Amino acid sequence: MGKQMFEIVSEGSIVTPRGFSAGGLHCGLKKTDRNDLGAIRCEVPATAAAVYTTNIFQAAPLKVTRESMADGRLQAVIVNSGNANACTGQQGEEDAYAMRAAAARELGVAESDVAVASTGVIGELLKMDCVHAGIQGLPEQMNVDREGAEAFSQAILTTDLVKKESCVSLVIDGVTVHIAGAAKGSGMIHPNMATMLAFMTCDAAVEQASLQQLLKQATDTTFNMITVDGDTSTNDMLVAMASGLAGNQELNAEHPDWEAFAEAFTYVCRILAQSIARDGEGATKLVEVSVSGAVSELSARAIAKTVIGSSLVKSAVFGADANWGRIIAAVGRAGEPVNPETVDIRLGDIIVLKGSRPVVFDEEEALAYLRGDTVRIVVDLHNGDGAATAWGCDLTYDYVRINAAYRT
Amino acid sequence: MGKQMFEIVSEGSIVTPRGFSAGGLHCGLKKTDRNDLGAIRCEVPATAAAVYTTNIFQAAPLKVTRESMADGRLQAVIVNSGNANACTGQQGEEDAYAMRAAAARELGVAESDVAVASTGVIGELLKMDCVHAGIQGLPEQMNVDREGAEAFSQAILTTDLVKKESCVSLVIDGVTVHIAGAAKGSGMIHPNMATMLAFMTCDAAVEQASLQQLLKQATDTTFNMITVDGDTSTNDMLVAMASGLAGNQELNAEHPDWEAFAEAFTYVCRILAQSIARDGEGATKLVEVSVSGAVSELSARAIAKTVIGSSLVKSAVFGADANWGRIIAAVGRAGEPVNPETVDIRLGDIIVLKGSRPVVFDEEEALAYLRGDTVRIVVDLHNGDGAATAWGCDLTYDYVRINAAYRT
Repeated sequence: MGKQMFEIVSEGSIVTPRGFSAGGLHCGLKKTDRNDLGAIRCEVPATAAAVYTTNIFQAAPLKVTRESMADGRLQAVIVNSGNANACTGQQGEEDAYAMRAAAARELGVAESDVAVASTGVIGELLKMDCVHAGIQGLPEQMNVDREGAEAFSQAILTTDLVKKESCVSLVIDGVTVHIAGAAKGSGMIHPNMATMLAFMTCDAAVEQASLQQLLKQATDTTFNMITVDGDTSTNDMLVAMASGLAGNQELNAEHPDWEAFAEAFTYVCRILAQSIARDGEGATKLVEVSVSGAVSELSARAIAKTVIGSSLVKSAVFGADANWGRIIAAVGRAGEPVNPETVDIRLGDIIVLKGSRPVVFDEEEALAYLRGDTVRIVVDLHNGDGAATAWGCDLTYDYVRINAAYRT
Repeated sequence: MGKQMFEIVSEGSIVTPRGFSAGGLHCGLKKTDRNDLGAIRCEVPATAAAVYTTNIFQAAPLKVTRESMADGRLQAVIVNSGNANACTGQQGEEDAYAMRAAAARELGVAESDVAVASTGVIGELLKMDCVHAGIQGLPEQMNVDREGAEAFSQAILTTDLVKKESCVSLVIDGVTVHIAGAAKGSGMIHPNMATMLAFMTCDAAVEQASLQQLLKQATDTTFNMITVDGDTSTNDMLVAMASGLAGNQELNAEHPDWEAFAEAFTYVCRILAQSIARDGEGATKLVEVSVSGAVSELSARAIAKTVIGSSLVKSAVFGADANWGRIIAAVGRAGEPVNPETVDIRLGDIIVLKGSRPVVFDEEEALAYLRGDTVRIVVDLHNGDGAATAWGCDLTYDYVRINAAYRT
């Protein structure tokens, strides 16, 4: 990493990039009065890219969104929470198409330019009367100010406690372009090739193929590197839209500012992914596992994800227990090449294992570190140049409480 | 499965097969006064077979045991709990060899006929003064009665709440032979090619290569099909010893009673494996996942293990929540071929999904079923002939409590 080529827009949101408005409301799908329906709209058809879950049981809205994405263009996204519209058969598909048609009509865009996303309980039909009434009320909620983005961000949450947002800006061809994103996700988080629901907006002009490739690459090192519980959802979807209204020359890999743009884009993905991990169901802290010295980047990723996914490691972090034995046991079962004699492990700056041998450390210092709200586990295998970082959270009583009675 | 060819010996134990004695005592490795050192001894050198963890970081005692097993013969096993003697370097190896030498001397057998096993905390050196004093006290504890087996079974436990034992008998060549086993395991349970600590005794004469092959096969469908937390230990080991004192002709695959013997042997493995799963850390119930209609047995195994390992499924079972959406989401992320339109799911006898579509079921009946102490999840993929069963447990507050402060 060199010098950061972009700036963080602290009050920015998905409506900061030129051309985008957003809104949300409560239509009755959630039992509480929290928002459960939201939309993003772009003034012009935007260049779009998307990645989806690799779960075999893909929810109905994913089929509809893939169809809309066929031409690499979107002008609006309609999302509901409280119901995943997954494993709902023919009726579920018809409902997803009906959502798209209603959103297109009310938001004044072409049906084929609308993406549909759903999140919530699997296996129940959508209450379409609620959905239709809600969509009719959306146009007056659409807003180019921050409150529109907040209403949208609220509308996509389920067991999430906090909104996940990020916005950055950078200068390309002498004009300022913005990249922003909003995401949800707290449980059933173990994205594979895609992620929880996440939506990114951008006002740069970007070539569609380049945007899709960048989205895929950024996903591999951000959203695909988080886990809350090892369970990959049926509804994961990440959609990015670029309005092109910033006025730059179209970006692609040949553009001199491509690296800077890609770095800024990946940064937004990483912030959203970390936010999801930190807000994992029941979590009290963000856990970051960095692996270096692996035989390859792919190998480092596999090891980092194995450690971050270990229930024993997660429980130890919750208990602020410097139990490095569980970390090395997870490294050793990852199925990747590891030299059993050369592993170093640090908790933050505290060295606990050197050359695979225990190092005497200050337990009080370790306890104080592990009680913080962010815990970094650093593993150096001294076995190659591969490196990767994964993010997750601790395993707590609240995780069990939340998931022992999610439906009821 | 045809008619069961063997009988369950309800009061049987690892000393029921002819030739075996066992014992255990407290030597000071555990903070409580529970037994932490145990041994099994055979009157004669026994034909032996073993499987070990595939974790890259293998504990010191595994190296020593592999060496003793080189000739396929064992006469004694020495085991401690409270300390895994893993990641302990050169000193750890020397300690494991010293344990073997002391046990050989005190039990009156050759060093090369002694297996060593350890279980407990990773990364701390064994208190060898305790170990040596304990081993000196072992001979007077060795007993051919049930109390010897009980003292041994207690000595191998860590966070386990109950002992795991099984014993069966069957008639071969007109003589009664016995197969028995004792196991431990409650956390860091996700065996791969091997298992937690488990010890089997048998008085049949069995060809060594046949015994090793049978042990491997039986392990694949029993110990390797359980999971508590997805974490594979550094110390997993399963050792089987056959004294040959029953008087049958040596068993191998050509013997007419081989099938019956293999079935009985596998039954003991299955009972021990199920016992470990039911006594998983914090568990309130045994969960069994049976998958049929997969494209192959290997594929069925992978899917069954994915479902049994899902934290969301495990939490739902704890909460007696008939949340089949999490089951199908786990099936769909297993990375195996599944037809998304043809999946049936039952909870016990209650059909909740048919042809991948929700079936209206009696929630009260499901609640009552899920509150039982054994929950069976049955998945039929209608996509082939492959079938497999996996065992695990629910994810509870107590799991988190136990693992948030294991070392401290």
